[in-house]
Amino acid sequence: MTTKKLSFSAQTVSYYFDASFDYLEKLVKTDNAVIITDENIFSANKKKFANWRTIVLQPGEAFKIQATVDSIIQQLIELGADRKTTLIGVGGGVVTDITGYVAGIYMRGLQFGFVPTTILAMVDASIGGKNGIDVGIYKNMVGMIKQPSFLLYDYSLLKSLPKAEWINGFAEIIKHASIKDAAMFKLLEEHKLTAFRKDKQLLDQLIRRNALLKSKVVQEDEFEQGDRKLLNFGHTLGHAIENSYDLSHGHAVALGMVVAAGISAVYTGYAETNRLVKLIKQYGLPAFAVFDAEKAMQVMQSDKKRVKDLIHYVLLQKTGKAVIMPLTAEQIAPIVKKLSV
Amino acid sequence: MTTKKLSFSAQTVSYYFDASFDYLEKLVKTDNAVIITDENIFSANKKKFANWRTIVLQPGEAFKIQATVDSIIQQLIELGADRKTTLIGVGGGVVTDITGYVAGIYMRGLQFGFVPTTILAMVDASIGGKNGIDVGIYKNMVGMIKQPSFLLYDYSLLKSLPKAEWINGFAEIIKHASIKDAAMFKLLEEHKLTAFRKDKQLLDQLIRRNALLKSKVVQEDEFEQGDRKLLNFGHTLGHAIENSYDLSHGHAVALGMVVAAGISAVYTGYAETNRLVKLIKQYGLPAFAVFDAEKAMQVMQSDKKRVKDLIHYVLLQKTGKAVIMPLTAEQIAPIVKKLSV
Ligand SMILES: NC(=O)c1ccc[n+]([C@@H]2O[C@H](COP(=O)([O-])OP(=O)(O)OC[C@H]3O[C@@H](n4cnc5c(N)ncnc54)[C@H](O)[C@@H]3O)[C@@H](O)[C@H]2O)c1
Ligand SMILES: NC(=O)c1ccc[n+]([C@@H]2O[C@H](COP(=O)([O-])OP(=O)(O)OC[C@H]3O[C@@H](n4cnc5c(N)ncnc54)[C@H](O)[C@@H]3O)[C@@H](O)[C@H]2O)c1
Ligand SMILES: [Zn+2]
Ligand SMILES: [Zn+2]
Repeated sequence: MTTKKLSFSAQTVSYYFDASFDYLEKLVKTDNAVIITDENIFSANKKKFANWRTIVLQPGEAFKIQATVDSIIQQLIELGADRKTTLIGVGGGVVTDITGYVAGIYMRGLQFGFVPTTILAMVDASIGGKNGIDVGIYKNMVGMIKQPSFLLYDYSLLKSLPKAEWINGFAEIIKHASIKDAAMFKLLEEHKLTAFRKDKQLLDQLIRRNALLKSKVVQEDEFEQGDRKLLNFGHTLGHAIENSYDLSHGHAVALGMVVAAGISAVYTGYAETNRLVKLIKQYGLPAFAVFDAEKAMQVMQSDKKRVKDLIHYVLLQKTGKAVIMPLTAEQIAPIVKKLSV
Repeated sequence: MTTKKLSFSAQTVSYYFDASFDYLEKLVKTDNAVIITDENIFSANKKKFANWRTIVLQPGEAFKIQATVDSIIQQLIELGADRKTTLIGVGGGVVTDITGYVAGIYMRGLQFGFVPTTILAMVDASIGGKNGIDVGIYKNMVGMIKQPSFLLYDYSLLKSLPKAEWINGFAEIIKHASIKDAAMFKLLEEHKLTAFRKDKQLLDQLIRRNALLKSKVVQEDEFEQGDRKLLNFGHTLGHAIENSYDLSHGHAVALGMVVAAGISAVYTGYAETNRLVKLIKQYGLPAFAVFDAEKAMQVMQSDKKRVKDLIHYVLLQKTGKAVIMPLTAEQIAPIVKKLSV
């Protein structure tokens, strides 16, 4: 196990890499905590949860909604949870997002920690303190920014993770490499997904590198005034097509990164689109798809991250170096169109 | 108008005392803001709201619930409110509590300010950043601590405030005087409620003194580790009987203060119960009532502020000086019983 402490504006987050789930009992007293997880994770790990009071959610994004929050609050009241209770989210991004949110509002705020169980949660969702729920068609419309006290990484939990979810998570890893870490980009080029699934040490290195990369970006810009926006690489178009085509998030981001690369080629002179496309395919992700470019442009323009008329697009200058450029819809549309067929 | 700025942990709060409602337009652009108010305040001040986009709630504590939050969020989405929008709560404590809460969670947090329209909101509810909603029988079960950007006091709004609500607010004023400000206690003894209702300057002085008193307590202890707890004077028993007997909050707190004074007489040697009772009656509040002491003790022990078995009771040492004493239920029960008949 490796531990690390990072300080955010009002909170220190402790990271326990390559740890064992049982180590939780060293961090929090079992009778002073409530675990929140989902049915898939619960049924794959029943024994691990035996000592803990556990709230089990229905799995999936469709349940990242207020009705689930209502139900968790009701169960916390019934369990007698009070201000001294620690909530522990054990799961993917849906579980960690909703656990962080409930911990932020129940009795005006409880301590909380995460045990991420998907690659995406390990390298992205559980880090940075953003939490929240969806409202109708609007993703993450309600929530707050609040850091967890700890993150515990037990890679053995990934044994039951479906391959499609591994691939999903690697979209964010490729994103991190593209915007901030050319050496990691190379490392990814040198391996295949199976290597990371089989070699725990290799995986530990990769997860840790990504977790600390995102943490550092967030730490320097917790409230998203600057660099944190770079993490949206691939997400502007990604979000715009994810719902319309019922794509997985990883697939949408992969497609979004390729479009962003195409826009970069025009506005920053980025010249490595082919290299990015190759890596994306190497990890089982799609690089091109047919979609309705006009509709995607419309959704992008109504996206909540848009301020006035400009779309702040994250572009690459080269592998490992991203910039933000305010572009008009007119500047983007023809490139999106070209890449949508 | 008098202005004052106070800094809290992550936010500066600007106070505009004796200001005019119209001054709001100097603080926030009308097309960048949404006002949240209730039907009573809206119908008494229709003209004032003409320039603003306004969400009008049904009045009363019964609507300080998640369903109202859902409805506000829906309306904010329809109005196109985004991260740059400022929410302004114009109303009593119900409106300010719910506005602060929605501002805390909508798109992970918007700027917000308050125009308190009840005495209670002016001296208490709008100050300190606590916000939230009720869940079933549990008051303020969900919420957070987050400071507003500004507080604007327009005393002309009080013209329509029912006398019973004036009296309610004076319970908190008497509370403030009792725990922290012997000179204000004296000032209150020298006047009657009608004087404050008629003399705007006298009222301005009183409101300002109370607003700054509470602000200072909160500022020194934003997250309620110490002195902020003193503000619960009268509220331990107050909360325990408020719901059971459908009392107004002011009446419950008045009765609670007298019981706390009785407990103080035993455990701190406080010797001014009669003086407190006299002042409470002078402002139209009840000092004694028949209630079920055993039931009240039960509710108190299940109160969320209780840690383990001890009840942290706010007691007076003398007028203007409060202390917190951890007492067992057994130490309190006989005194509560004696004062409940
Ligand atoms: N807060 C943030 O900064 C942030 C960042 C990125 C994404 N997110 C959010 O994360 C969510 C997506 O996260 P996700 O991809 O982890 O989704 P998820 O939580 O829905 O998990 C994906 C699926 O895998 C299952 N699962 C999880 N761990 C498992 C395991 N170990 N074994 C077997 N099955 C397992 C889940 O039950 C689910 O069916 C989205 O809601 C997104 O908005 C948040
Ligand atoms: N956040 C805090 O720190 C804090 C502190 C104390 C109380 N509170 C909360 O405040 C709430 C009570 O506040 P309140 O007593 O102001 O209640 P309120 O908001 O319900 O107002 C009382 C009544 O007066 C009406 N009203 C308000 N202003 C008026 C005006 N100018 N003219 C005519 N009618 C008017 C309202 O419509 C309502 O019917 C409770 O929910 C309590 O939990 C919060
Ligand atoms: Zn993503
Ligand atoms: Zn009160």
